[in-house]
Order: sequence, then C-alpha cells, then structure tokens
Amino acid sequence: MTDTARPTLEAVAALAGVSRATASRVVNGGDGVRPPLVERVRQAVEELGYVPNQAARSLVTRRHDAIAVVVAEPETRVFADPFFALQLRGISKELTAHDNQLVLLLTEGRHDHARVGRYLAGGHVDGALVFSLHLDDPLPALIRRAGVPAVFGGRPEPDTEPTVYVDSDNRGGAREAVRHLLALGRTRVAHITGALDQTSAADRLDGYRDVVGDADPGLVAHGDFTYFGGERAMRELLDRRPDLDAVFAANDLTAVGALRALRERGLRVPQDVAVVGFDDMQAIVEQSDPPLTTVRQDILGMGQLMARRLLSALRGDEPLDSGSSNSVILPTTLVRRASA
Amino acid sequence: MTDTARPTLEAVAALAGVSRATASRVVNGGDGVRPPLVERVRQAVEELGYVPNQAARSLVTRRHDAIAVVVAEPETRVFADPFFALQLRGISKELTAHDNQLVLLLTEGRHDHARVGRYLAGGHVDGALVFSLHLDDPLPALIRRAGVPAVFGGRPEPDTEPTVYVDSDNRGGAREAVRHLLALGRTRVAHITGALDQTSAADRLDGYRDVVGDADPGLVAHGDFTYFGGERAMRELLDRRPDLDAVFAANDLTAVGALRALRERGLRVPQDVAVVGFDDMQAIVEQSDPPLTTVRQDILGMGQLMARRLLSALRGDEPLDSGSSNSVILPTTLVRRASA
Repeated sequence: MTDTARPTLEAVAALAGVSRATASRVVNGGDGVRPPLVERVRQAVEELGYVPNQAARSLVTRRHDAIAVVVAEPETRVFADPFFALQLRGISKELTAHDNQLVLLLTEGRHDHARVGRYLAGGHVDGALVFSLHLDDPLPALIRRAGVPAVFGGRPEPDTEPTVYVDSDNRGGAREAVRHLLALGRTRVAHITGALDQTSAADRLDGYRDVVGDADPGLVAHGDFTYFGGERAMRELLDRRPDLDAVFAANDLTAVGALRALRERGLRVPQDVAVVGFDDMQAIVEQSDPPLTTVRQDILGMGQLMARRLLSALRGDEPLDSGSSNSVILPTTLVRRASA
Repeated sequence: MTDTARPTLEAVAALAGVSRATASRVVNGGDGVRPPLVERVRQAVEELGYVPNQAARSLVTRRHDAIAVVVAEPETRVFADPFFALQLRGISKELTAHDNQLVLLLTEGRHDHARVGRYLAGGHVDGALVFSLHLDDPLPALIRRAGVPAVFGGRPEPDTEPTVYVDSDNRGGAREAVRHLLALGRTRVAHITGALDQTSAADRLDGYRDVVGDADPGLVAHGDFTYFGGERAMRELLDRRPDLDAVFAANDLTAVGALRALRERGLRVPQDVAVVGFDDMQAIVEQSDPPLTTVRQDILGMGQLMARRLLSALRGDEPLDSGSSNSVILPTTLVRRASA
C-alpha cells in the first residue's frame, strides 16, 4: 500500500451506502442508528482503515474512549503472577464490549508513580482502574490530583484517600480455610503471609488469627505472594516447628512454593502436612502435586465489575462517591482438591 | 490528606530552594541545570506530588513523554508466554531510563486494531513499538495513517508497508539447531512449526528446510507457539512417524509441550528422541525435564534496542527511514543442555 491520504468520512459513508450524517453518528457513538446500518458503517470503517480525527472529536465529546489500568507493581510481578492476567482479562472483556481502549500503564515501582500521575493528568484517558496498592502508596493522592475518576481493586489502607473499590472477602475466606484445616483434625496450623504492605495480605492474616488466636507466633512466617517466598517461608517454619501439621498459604503461588519445600524434606501432603492456598488459579492448582485445595476468589469478575462501575460513572449513571456502601466485597468459596 | 488544591511550581521551587525558572527547567526536561539541583527539585516534586500542567506543556514541547507498545495478540497469549514479559522488560528499562511512560495497548485480537489506531491517532503518545505482527496485519497501515513514528519487533511480511524493525536471526538460528541434531547422528529430524502467519515461524521453518531439504513432509507438524500446540503436534508426529529420532520445536513452550507428549508415549529424551527449542526462556528451559537445549535469542536486548532506536529518532538523531540498512538482525546462539 502506498496511498498516504487518510480515508475520509465521506468515503466511509459511500462504501456503507449511508448518508454522511449517519456515518458520523456511528463513528461518534452510534446512538439512534439501526443496528444493520451500524454494522455496515463499522465494516466500511474497518475496510478503509478510517481513523476519525480524535483530537477534534475529543474537543466536542470530551471523551477519549480509553481507560487506564494502573498496576502498582514492577512488570516482573505483573507477568509472573497469573492473578494480574486474569484481572486484566476481566477488565479487557468489559472495556472491549463498550469499545473503550485499555491503556495499561506499567511502572518500575513506586518511584515511577509521579510519571504515571503526569500521564493521567495529561488528558489521555477518561478514567483509571487501579490495583495492587501498597501501604502509604502515593497513587490514590496522585490520581485525585490528576482529576481522573478512578475505581480501585482491593481495599485501600484506612488512612489513605477514600476511594470506591471492589475487593474479595479476604478475611472471611481465610477464616474458612483455617476452619477447614481444624475440621480435618489438624492442631498446629501455620500461616505463610502475603506481602503485608498490601491489605489483602493483612486481611488474610487477620482471618487466620480470628480462628487460631494469637497463641503461637512461631507458626506465622512472612512470604511475599511469590513462589520463592513461599518456598523460603515453608523452610523457616519447618526449622522452627517441625511438628506442624497444616499450612494456610496467602495465595496459590506461595502454596506451590511451600509444597516444594515440604517435598524436599520428605513430608507427604496431605498425610503429614495439609496445605490450603488462596486464589484458585487454574493454571497452578490443577497442575500442582497434589492438586491444591484453595479459597476461590472471582478475579475475572472483580476486573469486570471494576470496569463496569467506572464506565457507569462516566456515563453519569452512578457517581463515584466514596461512601462504603459504594464499594463491593465479593464472597469467596473453599474449593477442595487433594492437598487438604 | 484532604487538601484538594494542586501544588504549584512556586511551592516546588520554594521547597527545593531554587528559583522558579530553575524548577521549571527541571520539570520540563532539566537541560543545563546542575545535577544536585535537579535532584533537589525532583525530590520536592515527589514530596509535594506536583503534577505539571501536561496539556499546556505538550502544546509547547509537542511531546507527551509516552511511548505506546502495541502487541497484536490477545492478552491471554501476552500473559501466558514469558517471551512478551521479557521483551516488555527490555522496553520498560529503556523508557524508564529516559523518563518516558510505557503505555501498553491491549487488544482482544485484530478486530480491535482499528480502535488501537484511533488511540494512536489521538495524540496520546510520541511513538509506538509494535510486535507480533501477523500475515495481512492491518496494524502497519493503521499506524502509518495515525502519523505516529514506529519501530517494529520482528520482520514484517515483504508485501506490507516498509518499516524499521529489530529481529533475531530466526533462519540462521533454526539452521544451527538442525545441524546440531544431525551432528549428534540423528537422521529423522522432525520440526514443529510456530504460528505460520508470523514471519518468525516462517523463517524458522525455512531454516529447517535449508538443512534437511524438502524430503519428508511427514516430519513437519504445525504448532502455534503454545504448550498445548506443541503437545498436540508431537502426538501427531509420533502417530505418523514413530521412527523419528529428533525434534526441532519453534519455541521453548512448544518444546516443553512436545516433551510431555514424548514422556506420555514412554520415549526417553534424549536417548530415543533429541529435542531442541528456540528462545532460551530461563523459567522454562531450566525447569523442564530434562533441561532444554535451545536457540537463545536476546529478547530483552531486542526490546531495549527497539526503544532506543525510537527514542533516538524522536530526538531527531536518526530518522526512521525504512531502508533495510536501518533495521537490525540480532545473532542467536545454541545453548546446550540435556535434551539434545
């Protein structure tokens, strides 16, 4: 192809066999145009590779039809933990259904947050979906200053900006995991935490304590939501308390790391030590040896719900005021497999 | 925090103990300001959460300090194949070093490319890095029409728009893999292809044919660069040619899928069948059983080089004219482990 002239809206209208006004209505949102005509115009747009003059259009509609997703994690973690892929998939599904572009803003860590704030303030997106916040995270404040409507994934720290968020019942799910282990007759139930600068990890630790009490701090070891963190923490626990008979791990990756450390010491799962994870990531729990009993959270659904909530606010249907009634906590379910 | 006023440049200057003019120079690029002062201003910017008025700034500089990365794959593949994570890591490293925001544009497949084109045309980024193009991909044309400077990862089809690209020596690497298998005394070397609508897969198939000739089409099975594609193709090959004694797989994920199918049939690697992959993804090749002999390509380096090339063009140092001398082909290396 060597033609460098941009195709015009007139060319689109001619190819679709509709008036310029109809083609324009479809290109700018499609309200009040019959579906078969919308389809014809869309096909013509695709065939010609028509690109509307977005700058002009944004001036009129003040919409970019683009939503930023901000993940406050280095991309090594974003890509290593299928949790993020699944949440992004939920978001992407919802945004695509509403013809919004997903704009993923990657950072190398919190020192990059100011740059993300600048991009958000630059008028490139209509709103933001933010997940994986940490303790004292500057992101909520940066996003508020940028003036971009936002919905958060995961409960923020109580002392940060009030926000509208979608979260799982981390504390309730953890309680159910530990109660299940006790019901199996286990008496020395250990816990490997997640990264405790995140509320999801803190909430799961609280749920564990709700059930076992504060009795034995030797049974709690610190992980970081990664495979290697789980492996290391499990070794620590076994050195300290070789008599433990169950472990509740803060997520599935951590649990699989723990399984490896248990195998390395010649311990059988679940006969010697029962193990429960959190997340229910198919790619992990069904391949693990043995298949992992875990607390299922609806990660895909969280992503979808976040996107839906934001789009509805942008349409003006449901403003994002941050009363607690405006946030959503999704229930979790224990899924039994072979490890506990 | 309850203060909703944006911090001003004056406040930044006061906190840093510099003049407003100096603070402004740092915020707008830092040319000609002594490094210790730059550091003080940056700290003040961070402390106050100062966000420059990007719209005003873009009007003057016509820069967004943001680069789009467009991956022409559904996000399920982007997240399942560590190839993309590594390439993004290379890009991210380079962009961060030059204080540019990485803007990842996810699509659900080629029907979404028009939307990506609109976002690119909307003036939200200074340039684009594009990878994983397919046969007849509309992206190069959309990007040209959007008027955004772009560097491509992977050689485009010969009949598409001329582009500046960075690629690995896929054909040469494949030749080396097959020659290695022949040097081990193997005589019936099979090939599992990648997704043949991508030039990387087509080039590796050509490299295989360069060495073995077209003799036995029964020894070629079609994969798609995924684990399951490799497993399925290996079963096909074994049904067709149970006497095969070596396999060159188009990438590491494919090779690991093939290893599983071989194990399932009770065949030993490398004694019965020798296996070579392509990529050298640490997370895969060292965990596989047995560890995988593979053709290493410098994926991180490709990402870095793409970003470096684009930033240099944006600075005006090296224009992106698409002569072939302007593209880069990186060499590959055979890495021997236990599988061949």
